[in-house]
Amino acid sequence: MTDFALPVETRSIEPLGFEVPSSVPTRWYNIQADLPEPCPPALHPGTKEPLGPEDLAPLFPMSLIMQEVSTERYVEIPETIREIYSLWRPSPLVRAHRLERALGTPARIYYKYEGVSPAGSHKPNTAIAQAYYNKLEGTEKLTTETGAGQWGASLSLAGALLGLDVEVWQVRASYDSKPYRRYQMEVYGGTCHSSPSELTQAGRDILARDPETTGSLGMAISEAVEVAAQDPNAHYSLGSVLNHVLLHQTVIGEEALVQLEEAGDRVPDVIFGCAGGGSNLAGLTFPFIGRNLREGTTTRVVAAEPAACPSLTQGEYRYDHGDVAGLTPLLKMHTLGSDFVPPAIHAGGLRYHGMAPLVSHAVELGLMSAVAVEQDDAFAAGVEFARAEGIIPAPESTHAVAAAIAHARAATEPEVIVIGLSGNGVLDLPAYGSYV
Amino acid sequence: MTDFALPVETRSIEPLGFEVPSSVPTRWYNIQADLPEPCPPALHPGTKEPLGPEDLAPLFPMSLIMQEVSTERYVEIPETIREIYSLWRPSPLVRAHRLERALGTPARIYYKYEGVSPAGSHKPNTAIAQAYYNKLEGTEKLTTETGAGQWGASLSLAGALLGLDVEVWQVRASYDSKPYRRYQMEVYGGTCHSSPSELTQAGRDILARDPETTGSLGMAISEAVEVAAQDPNAHYSLGSVLNHVLLHQTVIGEEALVQLEEAGDRVPDVIFGCAGGGSNLAGLTFPFIGRNLREGTTTRVVAAEPAACPSLTQGEYRYDHGDVAGLTPLLKMHTLGSDFVPPAIHAGGLRYHGMAPLVSHAVELGLMSAVAVEQDDAFAAGVEFARAEGIIPAPESTHAVAAAIAHARAATEPEVIVIGLSGNGVLDLPAYGSYV
Repeated sequence: MTDFALPVETRSIEPLGFEVPSSVPTRWYNIQADLPEPCPPALHPGTKEPLGPEDLAPLFPMSLIMQEVSTERYVEIPETIREIYSLWRPSPLVRAHRLERALGTPARIYYKYEGVSPAGSHKPNTAIAQAYYNKLEGTEKLTTETGAGQWGASLSLAGALLGLDVEVWQVRASYDSKPYRRYQMEVYGGTCHSSPSELTQAGRDILARDPETTGSLGMAISEAVEVAAQDPNAHYSLGSVLNHVLLHQTVIGEEALVQLEEAGDRVPDVIFGCAGGGSNLAGLTFPFIGRNLREGTTTRVVAAEPAACPSLTQGEYRYDHGDVAGLTPLLKMHTLGSDFVPPAIHAGGLRYHGMAPLVSHAVELGLMSAVAVEQDDAFAAGVEFARAEGIIPAPESTHAVAAAIAHARAATEPEVIVIGLSGNGVLDLPAYGSYV
Repeated sequence: MTDFALPVETRSIEPLGFEVPSSVPTRWYNIQADLPEPCPPALHPGTKEPLGPEDLAPLFPMSLIMQEVSTERYVEIPETIREIYSLWRPSPLVRAHRLERALGTPARIYYKYEGVSPAGSHKPNTAIAQAYYNKLEGTEKLTTETGAGQWGASLSLAGALLGLDVEVWQVRASYDSKPYRRYQMEVYGGTCHSSPSELTQAGRDILARDPETTGSLGMAISEAVEVAAQDPNAHYSLGSVLNHVLLHQTVIGEEALVQLEEAGDRVPDVIFGCAGGGSNLAGLTFPFIGRNLREGTTTRVVAAEPAACPSLTQGEYRYDHGDVAGLTPLLKMHTLGSDFVPPAIHAGGLRYHGMAPLVSHAVELGLMSAVAVEQDDAFAAGVEFARAEGIIPAPESTHAVAAAIAHARAATEPEVIVIGLSGNGVLDLPAYGSYV
């Protein structure tokens, strides 16, 4: 990006003014400050030139565009956001004593649990932030797409707390078969449409060609983007992949740094996170990678992805589109190809053909590694975890659990393992039902 | 009860030995120590004489029978149970700043949130304890009944954590239409049968008369009790109503006493809890009522029950059976009659014809009062709460929320209100969907 002289409107959203506990972080961590090489920029899909802010301005508020390219190490978290975070943050870091015993491992295992958020996952960490900055700059409505509904519910929650309308296009197959998340959106005052819909030109065109289509994320993106681009009071919101999304998620890792130190295990040996678009993984691990780079600590980071959608372990590292139709900017990332159709695995949050550019870049630089996990192994690990620790992990999280359990079983030393538990699997119980 | 010379087997279940935070209570509170008049005893259904322990021994371990009649003020929580509690306890006490603003009330509102447990409600507080004492005395299997499945899932969780088989009879209508909780039981290793089943004489008899029956809690109780009574290695477990169940739930109120003092509001003016069988209400409020009785504090307690099943506000206070078939002991309680069939309201946990004897007794003594809440008002309050605080309350909890909101709206002074939020409504989203 080149020119950031566009005006930033600064309509403030006042905090309520109560004292937020100091255990709620005051800053997000930006790994772009510590990278040995900068991350390749996003390119305009037409010109193939690096994107300028004016290219993104129709879709995002300027403060988020600025965060997208910032190289400041820390970004202060506005007090209004900290107040909302404090409803469930800091999220627990729990020593998995019972799992350790069940595995007979000498390792000390911790899990950082994001399932305590009202939406049941890490997604509200960025949904709240995105809604805040949009509200600050006068946005009245946010549009987005959603698959199983986790992101749509999180953004609807954010809309309720910050006073924004939220309009969600949900892939028809999920809209018809998995209504719980839609009800959740509606309780929060969000509006959820089955996609493709008659409400957009993109949707009408698709329906004209194929009235019986079950929809796709690519179609839903087209609809949400079209509405945001045409409505001057609306913006678009994305739940993963982009730099500013990953930035907001670092609240997870910033907490974990403190919590591990308090637990007496300041420098864990290895952290396992699940990798779909990359935001939960990055949120937990980038603060640790940053410390490695600055202080020479040696915490290893392992991304656990599904064997059925193995962008990091099997994909190419190249420029590719973020969507099926090729309308989004070109992102340098590990990709299976923007036309890759992943099988219908239960971990809906891990079915993305690409990977966040910052995560891909970190892998290329050797700052983290990746493993692929088979779905049955992931569910087996989820059940094992549930029977030891009580929490039923989200299907996405079970990939990290499976990789961590395999590592812990093989451990011969009392090393320290951290698992990123991105959410709970309460609304994914039918998937567990199929497995059990 | 008369004779407690029966032997108590003391097979110990060793704790893992890690340090449990001091914020996890070390004792349960027993209101029977502080009551100005003792609670009327349970009577044998045949002889109408007070029950002896031998009457209950086929169904419950002796340590729980002892707790049922104990008049000691505090019961020490075994360290193994504290270790498990520490997975999610202390549960949060949250100041509802955003709700206060939304209501424009001068009151300070807190909610005590039990939805952070792995099962999503307060039920595991007693499930863990009951499983522990059963395991201690050599029980290998627990049987129980469940309606929507909340209790069956909680007991299955306890079975997984403490190494007991759990067999659940679930009312057929719920078994067929609401499978999420059944999947949850199965993830935890529990076995869930549709009731009536062919597995028991009671079930076979019912099916012979009416093969198409949709089942009832009364039928499911008969099946679970039959299996426990006939299997020397099995016991039966109940999720509410009985004194020892309420005792275990006081971990909620013991925490709240400390948390409110830390928040600078040591003596709240009024606490609202939802009342079905009475265990969540008692768990939160008995420690406050006990303090009122001992120290002369003046915290009011209000039980919020559904207008469709108004045992406290419309029922008679008399001896009645706990089940439809009249097989259980006679309990002195507020009852709508053991043949009362409540309408199919969404708050499944509040559809009990009676009330815990200790709660009924407390109401008779003027230690708490009761209000009835219409279902639509309850859901409206649940949505209002969700849009302000993020959490979607369980349909049961919304009754307390509705009563508290009405009270707060009318408040003219900065009084202190506490809401007992017994669980989250994630698996009740279809009920919200019908409402929204």
